Amino acid sequence: MKYINTQEITPQQLAQSLQRPAFDYSARVEQVQPIINKVKAEGDSALQDFNAKFDGIDTPISCVSQDVSQKDLESLDPKIRESFEVAIANITKFHESQKNTEHLVETMPGIQCWRESRAIDTVGLYIPGGTAVLPSTLMMLAIPAKIAGCEKIVVCTPPQKDGNISKEILALCAMLDLKNIYAVGGAHSVAAMAYGTEQIPKCDKIFGPGNQFVTVAKMLVSQDPYGAAIDMPAGPSEVLVVADEHANASFVAADLLSQAEHGVDSHVVCVVLSSEKGKEIEQKLGVQLMQLSRSEIAQQALEKSVMIQVSNRNEAIEVSNQYAPEHLILHLDDVDTVLSSITNTGSVFVGQWSPESVGDYASGTNHTLPTFGFAKSYSGVSLDSFVKKVTFQKLSKEGLQNISDTVINLADLEELDAHANAVKVRL
Amino acid sequence: MKYINTQEITPQQLAQSLQRPAFDYSARVEQVQPIINKVKAEGDSALQDFNAKFDGIDTPISCVSQDVSQKDLESLDPKIRESFEVAIANITKFHESQKNTEHLVETMPGIQCWRESRAIDTVGLYIPGGTAVLPSTLMMLAIPAKIAGCEKIVVCTPPQKDGNISKEILALCAMLDLKNIYAVGGAHSVAAMAYGTEQIPKCDKIFGPGNQFVTVAKMLVSQDPYGAAIDMPAGPSEVLVVADEHANASFVAADLLSQAEHGVDSHVVCVVLSSEKGKEIEQKLGVQLMQLSRSEIAQQALEKSVMIQVSNRNEAIEVSNQYAPEHLILHLDDVDTVLSSITNTGSVFVGQWSPESVGDYASGTNHTLPTFGFAKSYSGVSLDSFVKKVTFQKLSKEGLQNISDTVINLADLEELDAHANAVKVRL
Repeated sequence: MKYINTQEITPQQLAQSLQRPAFDYSARVEQVQPIINKVKAEGDSALQDFNAKFDGIDTPISCVSQDVSQKDLESLDPKIRESFEVAIANITKFHESQKNTEHLVETMPGIQCWRESRAIDTVGLYIPGGTAVLPSTLMMLAIPAKIAGCEKIVVCTPPQKDGNISKEILALCAMLDLKNIYAVGGAHSVAAMAYGTEQIPKCDKIFGPGNQFVTVAKMLVSQDPYGAAIDMPAGPSEVLVVADEHANASFVAADLLSQAEHGVDSHVVCVVLSSEKGKEIEQKLGVQLMQLSRSEIAQQALEKSVMIQVSNRNEAIEVSNQYAPEHLILHLDDVDTVLSSITNTGSVFVGQWSPESVGDYASGTNHTLPTFGFAKSYSGVSLDSFVKKVTFQKLSKEGLQNISDTVINLADLEELDAHANAVKVRL
Repeated sequence: MKYINTQEITPQQLAQSLQRPAFDYSARVEQVQPIINKVKAEGDSALQDFNAKFDGIDTPISCVSQDVSQKDLESLDPKIRESFEVAIANITKFHESQKNTEHLVETMPGIQCWRESRAIDTVGLYIPGGTAVLPSTLMMLAIPAKIAGCEKIVVCTPPQKDGNISKEILALCAMLDLKNIYAVGGAHSVAAMAYGTEQIPKCDKIFGPGNQFVTVAKMLVSQDPYGAAIDMPAGPSEVLVVADEHANASFVAADLLSQAEHGVDSHVVCVVLSSEKGKEIEQKLGVQLMQLSRSEIAQQALEKSVMIQVSNRNEAIEVSNQYAPEHLILHLDDVDTVLSSITNTGSVFVGQWSPESVGDYASGTNHTLPTFGFAKSYSGVSLDSFVKKVTFQKLSKEGLQNISDTVINLADLEELDAHANAVKVRL
């Protein structure tokens, strides 16, 4: 890791050190737009062609039967089943708590205003797959969708080499009572969910992480008024870890590596309060790295990452807020006192017993979080992501009388006659 | 208005009748992207050039002095000032009520999860202007931004012919204690807020309606990871009005016209339960239209609009949900019984005493709402639009022990060693 000390550099140099590796998707757009166009025009037959081309599977697109997923559930390793159950219970509990009852407000006598949540009707969940099996993403997206009450939940995930979806994913679909499951991935599956095909229902909003093709496809369909909304823009995964002099260097090193192993483009930032702690962490990193099956990936990610020495806790949080990490892990003594000053991040792991991996899988929080500095303006996925909040107002005749002068004066000022007239005609 | 009866047409024909006039912004992109590029490269001098070119004002860009806005407040028509005060009070009351206290959830013994709201640091508000004066938009955006606690609120609005911002807008800025106000509009002001210039601070998120150039500029900067987030995609304004046999046809006609006068591209849908009521409304429309100063605009909008006769209340709501109107006005007897079946819309005006114009200005609800069917997946602007919800998790050693098997099993399944190791190393 590159090592810098904020006392020895300018604010501009610090800003530069915190910059993520640039990504430019414009080249990808040229590859992805024709895929989208073909799926829009030809539907399932285009999907089948792309499945053959990209995944080597040339079978007609169809919804996976519930019998299949039920059978996979019955043959699931009991250890995995139990782990799914624990994770589902925790994620459910936390996302259930995000249901908010809002109260009707009488803004003036006779004028009642309130909001109500309405589930998004049809949502599409993209679950990466193929070689890797990522059931955690399915839990993180399907559970809040179910709590929200979405009418239809569509799941698209790439086929494995045998043409099927991994048995763990299908077992999980059975546990979550998901019914619209398709063995199709990549940009073409995003297009299918955005526009609909003979087999795949058109979705109002598409969720889920993916490679650059998937990311660009989501971006493109979200720009088309006839396409679909998306959860959020995406970049590579990242973590910022803050460690004070009391921090356990082994724990810190393990946290940095658990981010670094995600991919060579993962970004890892470690903020330390002393050079001694920095050296200790570097040393533990070296030891732990050797033992990982994905050590090559992690090493490449670490080479592009940075360790930053700051003078005090406040400065550490300032650096974090400036970077706006997807994940923020705090190895700090008396950690609760800094929480209120944290502004820009997706999810915070508070104290030494809270590694990121608990949030990735099972603590209950969502792991679909804003990357690439988007935490400055976006929240992670939550129950809110699957609903719209509709506002209502109900006036009595008296209420309308009470507000009539105000509305008429402002309509006159904006030179909108008919706006004023809609009040006048009633009184 | 075109008149159709759902009993005489196919579902496909109904869907076609509910389609908004298509808009294709691709031609605009070619015009807007160079404007954005120039502002990014040249900053304020580019803004001055564009102000000269588009608005005929060739003066250096600078922040409007607070003395100026204070003076405008002192000379403001007391009637307008009072109307501003009423609107501000109501909008504040309703948006204050959207503050939610969330509770910490212990998902398992020793595992605490919770969410906290954090204001978006710097927000940019685009307020259309030039010929029209639109203070209502400024209230709808600045009030929730202030309640959220945004550190910096930037206001950009086009200069009037004399080079200044309208005195009502400036007076309102003084009332709302806004300090970063710039007489610059159009796509170039959006670029300035997205990337920052010497004078205009870079914003994390940009809000506000505008013409096609502004809309396209917002779309483009929101796609750039180095740009800014935006409130929502936008299309022309629209209303759907439902009227049963008891509806007052004059009220209904006035509501249709108050939408139609917005612009020739406004979309107006009227759903009636009988042909008699439809005819009565048409007749009132003709009478009221003549009396409007913007009758030509309203007439053109109406020509592209549609009246739909349905068989019953349920079907009326189904048609509305299918269309997903920005505004939904319900002229229905026993109106409360249908509210729970409304799914896709921005804001609902419940009963005959609730014209859209009260929500446009002063009832308290926000008038920045999803158009063009985006209400299927987006909410209108609210306090939520100005904050991020950050998740936190804090585990005790016991908590980590309780969840360790689950995390390790799932990490093993996903073949992420270091994720498992971050737990193992701690225990």
